[in-house]
Amino acid sequence: MPTSSVLISEVGPRDGLQNCQTIMPTEAKKSWILALAAAGVKEIEVGSFVSPKLLPQMADTEDVVRHAVGISGLEVAVLVPNLRGAQLAIDAGAHKITLPLSVSETHSLRNIRRTHDQVIEEAKAIADLIAGLPEDKRPHFEGSLSTAFGCTLEGAIEESVILKCAERLMAAGCDEVGLSDTTGYGDPASMKHLIRAVRAVVGNENLTGVHLHNTRGLGLANVLAAFEEGITTFDSSLGGLGGCPTAPGASGNVVTEDLVFMFESMGVDTGIDLEALMATREMVAAALPDEELYGFTPRAGLPLGFKGVPVPAAAE
Amino acid sequence: MPTSSVLISEVGPRDGLQNCQTIMPTEAKKSWILALAAAGVKEIEVGSFVSPKLLPQMADTEDVVRHAVGISGLEVAVLVPNLRGAQLAIDAGAHKITLPLSVSETHSLRNIRRTHDQVIEEAKAIADLIAGLPEDKRPHFEGSLSTAFGCTLEGAIEESVILKCAERLMAAGCDEVGLSDTTGYGDPASMKHLIRAVRAVVGNENLTGVHLHNTRGLGLANVLAAFEEGITTFDSSLGGLGGCPTAPGASGNVVTEDLVFMFESMGVDTGIDLEALMATREMVAAALPDEELYGFTPRAGLPLGFKGVPVPAAAE
Repeated sequence: MPTSSVLISEVGPRDGLQNCQTIMPTEAKKSWILALAAAGVKEIEVGSFVSPKLLPQMADTEDVVRHAVGISGLEVAVLVPNLRGAQLAIDAGAHKITLPLSVSETHSLRNIRRTHDQVIEEAKAIADLIAGLPEDKRPHFEGSLSTAFGCTLEGAIEESVILKCAERLMAAGCDEVGLSDTTGYGDPASMKHLIRAVRAVVGNENLTGVHLHNTRGLGLANVLAAFEEGITTFDSSLGGLGGCPTAPGASGNVVTEDLVFMFESMGVDTGIDLEALMATREMVAAALPDEELYGFTPRAGLPLGFKGVPVPAAAE
Repeated sequence: MPTSSVLISEVGPRDGLQNCQTIMPTEAKKSWILALAAAGVKEIEVGSFVSPKLLPQMADTEDVVRHAVGISGLEVAVLVPNLRGAQLAIDAGAHKITLPLSVSETHSLRNIRRTHDQVIEEAKAIADLIAGLPEDKRPHFEGSLSTAFGCTLEGAIEESVILKCAERLMAAGCDEVGLSDTTGYGDPASMKHLIRAVRAVVGNENLTGVHLHNTRGLGLANVLAAFEEGITTFDSSLGGLGGCPTAPGASGNVVTEDLVFMFESMGVDTGIDLEALMATREMVAAALPDEELYGFTPRAGLPLGFKGVPVPAAAE
């Protein structure tokens, strides 16, 4: 086994909700985040600092971050598209900031209207901003390589382009890079291959997390492949929220419930109480009555005699 | 990569249909099997020789087998619970016979009303029957270890019991054993562990196939784990037909479409034309209007520029 524990980073409140038609009320977000943390989820991407005109679902991110940072032991992550977003995230007290750089420049222009050069400039500015903060106030800064396994507009992206993006993000001052299969184009072989290639450029310790989608049902197989390569942080969303708008009916992110079930079954500690996690589905279903929730484990129930990895009694 | 090609054994017409409320008309079964073979599927479990009172969905198995063996290049498999079923299968010309032995004796008694000893007696009788046939008429005879990763009645089954069952099936005269995760309790770690343990008893060449369910969403991750251990034959069903009656809403078998997409994406040849395979979903949906079809790839579509492993132009 590559490691005995993994970090599950719940992205439902950000990636999940930004793809929902319904806007979840702020109080429902806060209750959900609180319940996730109580179930043992240690990192949650709670929102993104983008224009409320573009993503009204994220308009309350500042409020949500300020609430979440009050939860003991929770790592509060946010997505930012630029320096302005990073400033807002820092002001609100976020612990982790993720800046996406789509390795497909076509997608980058469509998504955040910026070329690679322009995103790298933002990364430098954000890194400078962080460097100017007192050491104990500095958030962790990740550059996320979006569409790393292919783009719906460009198809496969040249590996040399991806590696160059990874190198430039680190040079700009990111603490680490992440790999995102934004489109669900990845497979276990491409997963292993690209993780090795990027690590060869940035160093093993600077690529520890992946953000995978389940668009074509390969989410958990791809997680397994990444885990076998030594990846330790996995993004996922409760109920698989985050369906791609261009692929109706296709599930979005890897489903947190099934992901936790897989690792716990394997004897890999997630620190998450699976029953408590599944109970938070009810809150989401109530707040988003029109959204389809994915995931098989909640519907099938846990195996007879299933124990998972014991959660320490004193765990907060 | 453990191997450059795998055999996908479609079990929809057997495992899928026997769990459906609707009975698929015989002509629809024949058309579906024909279309699957035309898409490049090389092995299909077309039915089971069980009492039509217990499983009216399988009452036409003899007719379906006789039709299927006329399809050039297709390996026609059937499930049989006993010697009588095996005789019928042989008379109809089946190429492969699978006898399930549930390693959970409680499940074995519930499912086919036989103890382990009684199933082993049937296995011996079937092996004797086959040995009495001319060499070119002998079907391949597999003993399938059902509930190998746990049972909904007994929970986890002692590994020593599983290994003993495997050993006894081989001693009884089976050509090989298979591992079935009947309940969807398996995970990638238990998959690898049990494959190694059983192979240590029966020899690598006598365990080449697994039959996995997607009950808790781990189907493809478990396939990947088995593939990495050198397993080369994977059962699956179109649309994931075969939902467990005791777990409403939980998908049944591994979904053939997603499975083929995974392997072809990895550069592992399945010999199957994915577009043609997905077209056969329409036939199933038309014949079983009340059944939910699973699978993400058909809904999301193939990635831009996706080619898969080229199918030889001259392939039948």
